[in-house]
Amino acid sequence: MEIKKRLAELGFELPPLPQPRGAYVPGIQVGEFIWTSGQLPFVAGELRYRGKLGVNLSVAEGYEAAKLCVLNCLSVVEHIAGTLDAVEQIVRLVGFVASGEGFTEQAQVLNGASELLFALFGEKGRHARCAVGVQELPLGAPVEIELLVRVRCYNNLGSEEHFHT
Amino acid sequence: MEIKKRLAELGFELPPLPQPRGAYVPGIQVGEFIWTSGQLPFVAGELRYRGKLGVNLSVAEGYEAAKLCVLNCLSVVEHIAGTLDAVEQIVRLVGFVASGEGFTEQAQVLNGASELLFALFGEKGRHARCAVGVQELPLGAPVEIELLVRVRCYNNLGSEEHFHT
Amino acid sequence: MEIKKRLAELGFELPPLPQPRGAYVPGIQVGEFIWTSGQLPFVAGELRYRGKLGVNLSVAEGYEAAKLCVLNCLSVVEHIAGTLDAVEQIVRLVGFVASGEGFTEQAQVLNGASELLFALFGEKGRHARCAVGVQELPLGAPVEIELLVRVRCYNNLGSEEHFHT
Repeated sequence: MEIKKRLAELGFELPPLPQPRGAYVPGIQVGEFIWTSGQLPFVAGELRYRGKLGVNLSVAEGYEAAKLCVLNCLSVVEHIAGTLDAVEQIVRLVGFVASGEGFTEQAQVLNGASELLFALFGEKGRHARCAVGVQELPLGAPVEIELLVRVRCYNNLGSEEHFHT
Repeated sequence: MEIKKRLAELGFELPPLPQPRGAYVPGIQVGEFIWTSGQLPFVAGELRYRGKLGVNLSVAEGYEAAKLCVLNCLSVVEHIAGTLDAVEQIVRLVGFVASGEGFTEQAQVLNGASELLFALFGEKGRHARCAVGVQELPLGAPVEIELLVRVRCYNNLGSEEHFHT
Repeated sequence: MEIKKRLAELGFELPPLPQPRGAYVPGIQVGEFIWTSGQLPFVAGELRYRGKLGVNLSVAEGYEAAKLCVLNCLSVVEHIAGTLDAVEQIVRLVGFVASGEGFTEQAQVLNGASELLFALFGEKGRHARCAVGVQELPLGAPVEIELLVRVRCYNNLGSEEHFHT
């Protein structure tokens, strides 16, 4: 439970497994890869931030929202892999930032997520990234983040069979 | 031809292989993965819907457009894999929804695609998903959908060599 | 150095390895796959184009910007794989085009990247593609391109260990 311990030391805790807002699942594992669904800044089932960067939210607020998104992604990874200690590499992060006309600091916003990943996982937390400023996100969220993660081994429950209900 | 039969029972048929609108191919297979290009709501070579959600299109129309996009994705998968029965898992769906200011029901729109996948493939149809509201899509389409699919085995023609002309 | 030679014959040269604008790396290799980060139209460390298609930039300018983005992607691939001759397949290209209201020629813009890939790599350069028109991109760039590439083998330095500093 090394990563969970580091997370607590940094003052964070994982949110509960995010509930899909439609006919999809929070994430899928195939072999050593886990793709999470795009995650929003939920805390205890409530969207913590709403709106757009460059309209009603500051870069500092967007930075916090990006942290919350990636914590939700990690909750998905933990649920699928069994433990965050199975993470071998954060491969790719895509961050969509709801952006008002002329707002071009998407990178600064997403650093909230990227810096947390590096603080948690060290070298394994370094990732490729796309930062995009979009018109609107589901439920009026200001940030949405998707992760692709490589994990050490198959989970006990067997690849993508995990979210069957 | 189990999936094709279920598709017909649900009242759908696959559109012809979508023609690329540029210097790319409809999809690529590498090993057990097929990535489709982003697909638009084409029917018989014509874009069935144009415009934006929250401007000139209702959620119900967007839902239908999302179905058409994913049918075009499945046409690509069938063309590459030989049969939709080779699908082992719909892994990831990314849906871009052309959205007017303040439209935040991207999830409801994309359920048109996700629910069809689940109806067709059952548990194998459950997928990770990103829903994003964007400014404009090619040709004025209201929805664009990209699929990542895991298939059972290599096609007869050999991985990504498929679209060579 | 076959690809580098063809690049020179076509009148291009690779830009220096693009510097990340945040807490991420230019690209990640896992096994035979390399994911690049989203790349902007940088030349010698300067953004060559700024603005939006359909506002202050023409399709021809966007086409040139897309070429520059993909050259930056290829600089990342070369840095990770050691040589562009290791490229087995350009698998997937995602192109985000900063688009003014009503601009729907994202495909024509991204052909700047796709046609260059095909000229350079031939059949190996054919790829799946998503074209999306977005509100804003980092630093005011008009185009951002992400590549997924399959390479022949592991690099000498060992998969994603490459960008450690």
